[in-house]
Amino acid sequence: MEKKRTTIVLFSGDYDKAMAAYIIANGAAAYDHEVTIFHTFWGINALRKQAPIEVKKGFLEKMFGKMMPRGAEKLGLSNMQMLGMGPKMIKHVMKKHNALSLTQLIEMAQEQDIKLITCTMTMDLLGLQKEELLDGVHYAGVAAYLADAENGNVNLFI
Amino acid sequence: MEKKRTTIVLFSGDYDKAMAAYIIANGAAAYDHEVTIFHTFWGINALRKQAPIEVKKGFLEKMFGKMMPRGAEKLGLSNMQMLGMGPKMIKHVMKKHNALSLTQLIEMAQEQDIKLITCTMTMDLLGLQKEELLDGVHYAGVAAYLADAENGNVNLFI
Amino acid sequence: MEKKRTTIVLFSGDYDKAMAAYIIANGAAAYDHEVTIFHTFWGINALRKQAPIEVKKGFLEKMFGKMMPRGAEKLGLSNMQMLGMGPKMIKHVMKKHNALSLTQLIEMAQEQDIKLITCTMTMDLLGLQKEELLDGVHYAGVAAYLADAENGNVNLFI
Repeated sequence: MEKKRTTIVLFSGDYDKAMAAYIIANGAAAYDHEVTIFHTFWGINALRKQAPIEVKKGFLEKMFGKMMPRGAEKLGLSNMQMLGMGPKMIKHVMKKHNALSLTQLIEMAQEQDIKLITCTMTMDLLGLQKEELLDGVHYAGVAAYLADAENGNVNLFI
Repeated sequence: MEKKRTTIVLFSGDYDKAMAAYIIANGAAAYDHEVTIFHTFWGINALRKQAPIEVKKGFLEKMFGKMMPRGAEKLGLSNMQMLGMGPKMIKHVMKKHNALSLTQLIEMAQEQDIKLITCTMTMDLLGLQKEELLDGVHYAGVAAYLADAENGNVNLFI
Repeated sequence: MEKKRTTIVLFSGDYDKAMAAYIIANGAAAYDHEVTIFHTFWGINALRKQAPIEVKKGFLEKMFGKMMPRGAEKLGLSNMQMLGMGPKMIKHVMKKHNALSLTQLIEMAQEQDIKLITCTMTMDLLGLQKEELLDGVHYAGVAAYLADAENGNVNLFI
């Protein structure tokens, strides 16, 4: 029997939306789906390494790099941002309830062999380089996304 | 012949996005789909009762409860919020055109036997209790969502 | 063999989200999918003609018309709006990398026979008239969307 397949486009750079994406992805993998998360536009920020990485860049690329959040735990909320208080409150209740942080959800995804793809077109546009992203991430374009999605059972854009 | 199936994750707590979710859901039910709406994160606010409900809560849970909109008609817009004027203008033109309000769309969904599920993980995190939500709502986790979605024809994340 | 089918609801009026929708749509058409983009709510703004069109309207309809962006190149970003600087920076790097603008992506979609539908309910609510939208656009309701989506391989809500 063919495996079920879940394919998620993660466009958003919001902490809560990325959490939702990774919770669904990890759940699907646990139920034996083949799972792909295709990170595009702001969704790539979840995969950035937290430490600043030295790479050669032009002026605009440096600016984008500085303005965008560096890694999962720096993302803001889609809602109730409240001058930065929202993310802290959410992380506080998550700890209290032993919920996994986004960083832990991404690690779990990698352990479950979920395919994490980064959109090469966005990488070019925003001037991000492979050294700046987590190890083990794949790089591809919209054609690779479609090849996975068109045979999918669950396709989501988040 | 097996019934077609539509499954929607309602993540957003915006009035206009919730409307879009319920319009598609009601349309699909009218065309004889089995329909599930899985409310998670801010999407749960659409299902809150409008009257304040007395339940015992800790400090943070009380704060979340107060800060989040209580029920469908309190939700803001994803766009053109304009200091609160946007929702009023939209509701005004909706009345003028005899469009159903979100409250009415939710009632219609319940009449059409659309399965309204609330995400138990979010309930825990935000400290919401069953007494605070509309009657007839189901409670489940991501596994229940996936079981419905993986056999679905139309799967959306809103 | 039946053709694969991609159906996208474009709800958002953000430049970056509309770009993502049209990039996926054009990619899917290139891989021989039948593709529909159903524009609803703020997503319709991407299809407005840039020049102001003289049509008779009531007061509220005129206000909506003035407040909403007129055409693809007037849309804002979902993120990094930064007092209007974000869209300029993005368009600057897009030109530098020879990426297609949203206007060009829409033209390409029309050349590839992607079916662009505008939601008639939203047209009524916001008081938009056919003369104000690009030529060649179709007009339909949620039933037409569902008819395309329920046989789809890739269904997205953007």
